[in-house]
Amino acid sequence: MDEFSLIHHYFASQATVKQKNTINSNSVILGIGDDAAIVSHSRQALAISIDSLISGIHFPEHTSARDIACKALMVNLSDLAAMGATPAWFTLALSLPTDFNLRQTHQWLDVFSQELHQLAQSYALTLIGGDTTRGSQLSITIQIAGTMQHPPMRRANARAGDMILLSGTLGAAALGLKLLQHPQASDWQGIDNAAREQAIQALNRPQAEIEKGQILARYCQCAIDISDGLLADLGHICTQSHCGAHIFAEQVPRASCLATLPAQKALRLALSGGDDYRLCASMAPEKWQQLQQEHPEIANHFFCIGHMTSGKGITIEYQQHILTELDGVPISSLGGYNHFG
Amino acid sequence: MDEFSLIHHYFASQATVKQKNTINSNSVILGIGDDAAIVSHSRQALAISIDSLISGIHFPEHTSARDIACKALMVNLSDLAAMGATPAWFTLALSLPTDFNLRQTHQWLDVFSQELHQLAQSYALTLIGGDTTRGSQLSITIQIAGTMQHPPMRRANARAGDMILLSGTLGAAALGLKLLQHPQASDWQGIDNAAREQAIQALNRPQAEIEKGQILARYCQCAIDISDGLLADLGHICTQSHCGAHIFAEQVPRASCLATLPAQKALRLALSGGDDYRLCASMAPEKWQQLQQEHPEIANHFFCIGHMTSGKGITIEYQQHILTELDGVPISSLGGYNHFG
Repeated sequence: MDEFSLIHHYFASQATVKQKNTINSNSVILGIGDDAAIVSHSRQALAISIDSLISGIHFPEHTSARDIACKALMVNLSDLAAMGATPAWFTLALSLPTDFNLRQTHQWLDVFSQELHQLAQSYALTLIGGDTTRGSQLSITIQIAGTMQHPPMRRANARAGDMILLSGTLGAAALGLKLLQHPQASDWQGIDNAAREQAIQALNRPQAEIEKGQILARYCQCAIDISDGLLADLGHICTQSHCGAHIFAEQVPRASCLATLPAQKALRLALSGGDDYRLCASMAPEKWQQLQQEHPEIANHFFCIGHMTSGKGITIEYQQHILTELDGVPISSLGGYNHFG
Repeated sequence: MDEFSLIHHYFASQATVKQKNTINSNSVILGIGDDAAIVSHSRQALAISIDSLISGIHFPEHTSARDIACKALMVNLSDLAAMGATPAWFTLALSLPTDFNLRQTHQWLDVFSQELHQLAQSYALTLIGGDTTRGSQLSITIQIAGTMQHPPMRRANARAGDMILLSGTLGAAALGLKLLQHPQASDWQGIDNAAREQAIQALNRPQAEIEKGQILARYCQCAIDISDGLLADLGHICTQSHCGAHIFAEQVPRASCLATLPAQKALRLALSGGDDYRLCASMAPEKWQQLQQEHPEIANHFFCIGHMTSGKGITIEYQQHILTELDGVPISSLGGYNHFG
């Protein structure tokens, strides 16, 4: 087995089959196997994003190849969703651990590539190229491109008075990570098997909200996807838009698997836990009304959790008080994960 | 320091300045700092390529941040050159080692980002986005996009009877790697300091041949860049074009730093050494004549080293004999580096 036969077997042959099945097929002039891929598209703008997942940092080391494929694709698709883009094509830079033997390499690639192709197909997304190498750690970098039908939803476009909308419940993925990291901790003793599974599923198999993003982009000019936690990501909107945000904690929808946790602990996971990949949008009230009228089936999935202010930073109202700490932790330290802290 | 201020300081602020200076500036609608970058361009097709460099695998561990920036960009630019594309924009996924302390991180990023921006600017290339994280190894993945003015030069387009052209001398980078890996080996005792420097420079600071690629693409439908070694990369052309190749070893231009080596050793480095990033093209004889007449300043840089055949694989003629081994090694095992061998 060399790099080229491996790429051909696991990626090129399946991608070719895929290209013929998708609506984007005519935009890929030349796919995997040359110095570069060649793509073509109409005059629409392109949204482009790149994200790396490294074993032990972005996912627990024992995560299955199937779940890693899902997560690597979804975190990138989620970036497109937050822009309102339509997925078109992606490239994959894969570094497999040097301590995988031949059998492990084949087994891993077999599962990984099948899942990747299947998910890509379901989003009409084509794998056009990549790079495969070896390193000390398993690492997956995907760059994705999508076409834009509307102006992008930028982090800098929030305005004081906008409503803050959330596309679904929060906290499940963060609970999943804690369950895997500290399975025996007394905090989780009340959580039943179904809730446990829901939480770990949320962590390992997030779903990018492409359709919600596309509809949202018709009404809204500001959105972000929740990868680092609501407070951290809404914080980016505040910083880039030179606004503040006021959140009503009771209105932040918590995943049902958090139901048996003490209220403050559940709220903390919902506010600061990452990896849920929901969309958070800032939208003028009249646009929200219009969206509810024109797309009730989409609007029904959104929760209004507060509004943008002319202040600075995020204030959280809980039981009619402004929170300064939650679950024993100061609010100011509930930001997202920092690789360089 | 958090990931966001780091990205802003080292990458976003400089990239914004850069955007205003380049011919591609109007195609970048939204650069670094949001969920995705937004780009727009005319109806031309795009060439897209992705390449990872991992410390200790793609460059020696003690390579400077400046040289790593150069190499990471050049290996990707070289892929565009081999397609005949014009560089437009790129994204960067950077994983810094967890054992870099704060001071090392800043020092490294300072040098790396300055060099990256400077080189990007010289190629009218804009950094539009990226991802910065930590891992056990230093790893740099760049995805690059360029616009296409001509049909791509594909590996599959060679025809029996085509001439095989090479854009410059070979073997210097491979010698550089050997000098760094085995500085005391008796093989290199005759090499003076100037030759030593030339070889290490070739390894650490390759130059992508964008202009040559662009001119080439007007006359030629098949090219590859020499990253894994002439025999390995020309081998890809043979495989994908269902052709053979016949090479005259005396006509393969050897880097001047190889001059004091025994003839067979020098030839082996030139034929099988990687990392030179020259272009190798397969071109109809009449097109080569036309290129020589219309662009003598470019044609002068090319060497004709043989021709494509209707056979299979590569034969090497040396002193009027077909080589079966070189420098004690069978020709068949002089292919490129294989990460999965």
